[in-house]
Amino acid sequence: MAPVCVRDNEGSSVTNTSPIDVAWMRRAVELAARGIGSTHPNPVVGCVITGPDGHPVGEGFHAVAGGPHAEVEALRMAGPNARGGTAYVTLEPCNHTGRTGPCADALIEAGVARVVYAVPDPNAQAAGGAEKLRTKNVAVEAGVLQREAEEVNHVWLHSVRIGRPFVTWKFATTLDGRSAAPDRSSRWITGELARADVHRKRAECDAIAVGTQTVLDDDPVLTVRDEHGRPTGRQPLRVVVGDREIPSTARVRNDDARTLMLPTHDPAEVLRQLDDHHIRHLWLEGGPTLAAAFLRAGLVDQIVAYVAPAVLGSGYSAVGDLGAESIDHLRRFHCADVTRLGEDVRLTLTPFDQRTH
Amino acid sequence: MAPVCVRDNEGSSVTNTSPIDVAWMRRAVELAARGIGSTHPNPVVGCVITGPDGHPVGEGFHAVAGGPHAEVEALRMAGPNARGGTAYVTLEPCNHTGRTGPCADALIEAGVARVVYAVPDPNAQAAGGAEKLRTKNVAVEAGVLQREAEEVNHVWLHSVRIGRPFVTWKFATTLDGRSAAPDRSSRWITGELARADVHRKRAECDAIAVGTQTVLDDDPVLTVRDEHGRPTGRQPLRVVVGDREIPSTARVRNDDARTLMLPTHDPAEVLRQLDDHHIRHLWLEGGPTLAAAFLRAGLVDQIVAYVAPAVLGSGYSAVGDLGAESIDHLRRFHCADVTRLGEDVRLTLTPFDQRTH
Repeated sequence: MAPVCVRDNEGSSVTNTSPIDVAWMRRAVELAARGIGSTHPNPVVGCVITGPDGHPVGEGFHAVAGGPHAEVEALRMAGPNARGGTAYVTLEPCNHTGRTGPCADALIEAGVARVVYAVPDPNAQAAGGAEKLRTKNVAVEAGVLQREAEEVNHVWLHSVRIGRPFVTWKFATTLDGRSAAPDRSSRWITGELARADVHRKRAECDAIAVGTQTVLDDDPVLTVRDEHGRPTGRQPLRVVVGDREIPSTARVRNDDARTLMLPTHDPAEVLRQLDDHHIRHLWLEGGPTLAAAFLRAGLVDQIVAYVAPAVLGSGYSAVGDLGAESIDHLRRFHCADVTRLGEDVRLTLTPFDQRTH
Repeated sequence: MAPVCVRDNEGSSVTNTSPIDVAWMRRAVELAARGIGSTHPNPVVGCVITGPDGHPVGEGFHAVAGGPHAEVEALRMAGPNARGGTAYVTLEPCNHTGRTGPCADALIEAGVARVVYAVPDPNAQAAGGAEKLRTKNVAVEAGVLQREAEEVNHVWLHSVRIGRPFVTWKFATTLDGRSAAPDRSSRWITGELARADVHRKRAECDAIAVGTQTVLDDDPVLTVRDEHGRPTGRQPLRVVVGDREIPSTARVRNDDARTLMLPTHDPAEVLRQLDDHHIRHLWLEGGPTLAAAFLRAGLVDQIVAYVAPAVLGSGYSAVGDLGAESIDHLRRFHCADVTRLGEDVRLTLTPFDQRTH
C-alpha cells in the first residue's frame, strides 16, 4: 500500500508510515485509554495483533498494576494465529521481569514476525525490549502515532522522565479570586457539573494531597465518589501535608481510603516520599499555603482551575504569598484547555517549558 | 408561499410568518448591525424595501445620530419603486420629529403598501409609528425575527426599558483574582489580543468611567485606540467618579476625548447625570471601590472579565468589599459567553434576572 507522510512528535521531521500501521496503532491507543486511572504506578498500554494475512487476531490493554500486560492479553486472544503476524503496541514492549515476565520474550515465543510501537520506554529498568526483539530477528518499527500515544500516557511519561510524581494543582475560585469566604466557608463555589468533574479527575490520580489547615477548616473526606456520594472502588492515597495536629475524628482518617501523614513543609520532600510509594500523579487540592509552597518550588506541572461566574469581594485566595511585588513577577502559564461545565468554566494550564503536553 | 412556524421571543407561543418576510428581515438585522458603536444615543436600525413584485429596491441603516434614519436611507435608494411595496424595519418606525422627521410619515408619503417590523419601539417619545401607519391604510405586521433584532439592539433596548444607562463592568484579572500587584502595577496582566478586544468593546459604548483612585494609580488615557495606539475617530465620553483631586497633567484630561468629572460616590447619581448626557451604555473600568459600589447598588447589567492564565499570590482584587461574610453571600451571575483571546479567556456574565440578553 502507499505510505503516507506523518509528522513526528516535534513536528519537524517527516517519516513514511503505512496507513494500515497507523490505523491499528490508533486502535491500540484507544485500548490503552481504557486503563486510565487504574494502572498506577504503571503506564497505560494497548496492543493489537494482526495475523500474517493482516487481519486482527487479538487485542488487549493493561487494566491494572500486577495484572497482565497489554501484549500478553492480546497474545492470549490470538493464540497460534499470532505466529508470523504483527504486534502493534503503544509503548515499547518491556524487557523487565516484575510481577509479570518481559513482554519482549512473550512476543518472541509466540513467533510474532514484526513489532510496531509508538513510544520508546523511558523507564531505564524496563527498557531494552526493542533491542532484544531485533537480536531475535523480529522486525521492529518505532514512533508510529507517537504523539497520540504520548498524549494518552503523558502524566506517566512525564513522571518517569522527571523522576518524581506529576503534580496537578486544582482549585475552585470566584472570578475575583476567592476560594473561601471570610468565615472560611467554601461550599459550594462551583456547581454540580464542576464538582462531578473533580471526582472524575481525582480518579485519574493516585494520590490527593491537602495541607493540615484545609483538614482543620473543611474536614474533607478526599475520596472519589459517584453521583450518589458513595466512594468508588479504587481510591487514591490521601496525603495530609504539615505538622499541625489533626483530630482523630477527621474524616480524612476514615476507612474509605488509605491516608499518609507527611509532617513536612517541603514540597520536594513530599514528592520524594510519594515517589517511594510509587505515586505517579499527585492531585494537589490546597490550601493556599501548600499551593504557594509547590509553586515557589517550581513543582506544579499542571493547574486545573474551576472558575465560578460569581464575585465575593472578600475572603481567601487559592494561593498564598509568592513574594510578588510588581506585575513583572506574574507567573504565567500556557492555557491548554478551556471547558464549560454548566455555569462554571474549567481552565487547564501547563508551564511553558513542559514539552510533553 | 407556505408559512413557517416561528417561536416568538419567549419561546412559548407560535406565530405564522412567511419565510420571505424572515429572509428580508434577516438582511435588515445585518444592516442594523453596521451601526453598532456609532448611533449613540439612538438605537441601531436596518431597513430593506421590496417593490410590488417582491424584488429588493432599497436598503439602508442608521449610521450616526443626527444622520438619516434607516427607512429614509432605504426610501432614498428605492425612489418611486417603493410605491406599493413592503418595508422591512428592525424597529417600529418612529412617529417623532427630532433632528429628522417621523419615519412613519416618510413611508406613507412614499406609498409603501405594507410595513413589517421586528421590535416595538419602547421609547414613549418615538412610539406610535405602527398606529399612524394603520390609520393611513398601510398593512402592518410586527414581531418578525424579533429575537435577533432585539439581540443586535439589546443594550439600547435595555437602557430605554430601565430608564438609565446600561452598565458593563470590565476588569482584567489573574486566575487568583489579582488585578494589580502590591505596588499597584497592572500593566499588563492580559495579552495583546485581550487588550485589542477591550478597545473594540470600548468603541461600542458611549461613556467610560473610572474612579479617581484609578486615575491616580494608572493615569489611564481612557480612549479607544487602534492597533498603532492612535485614538480612533469617535470617542466615548470619559467619566471620572469621586472627589479626590486629579492632577491637571492627568492623561484623562487631554484633548483626545471629552471628560466629565462627577464628584460623587453614589452610582445611582452617576447614572442620573449620565442619563442627562444621553449616555446609553456605560463601560465601567474600575477600580475596586467603584466596582463594589455599583455591584452593591445592583447597577451592573453585564460583566466582561479578562482572565489571564497566571498567578500572582498577592496584590489587589478587581472588586472591593461587598459585605460578604460567608459563601452564602456569593453574588452569582449567568455565564453568557466564554471566548479565548490568545492565552487569555474572556467571560461575559449577566444577572440572572436580565431578560433581554
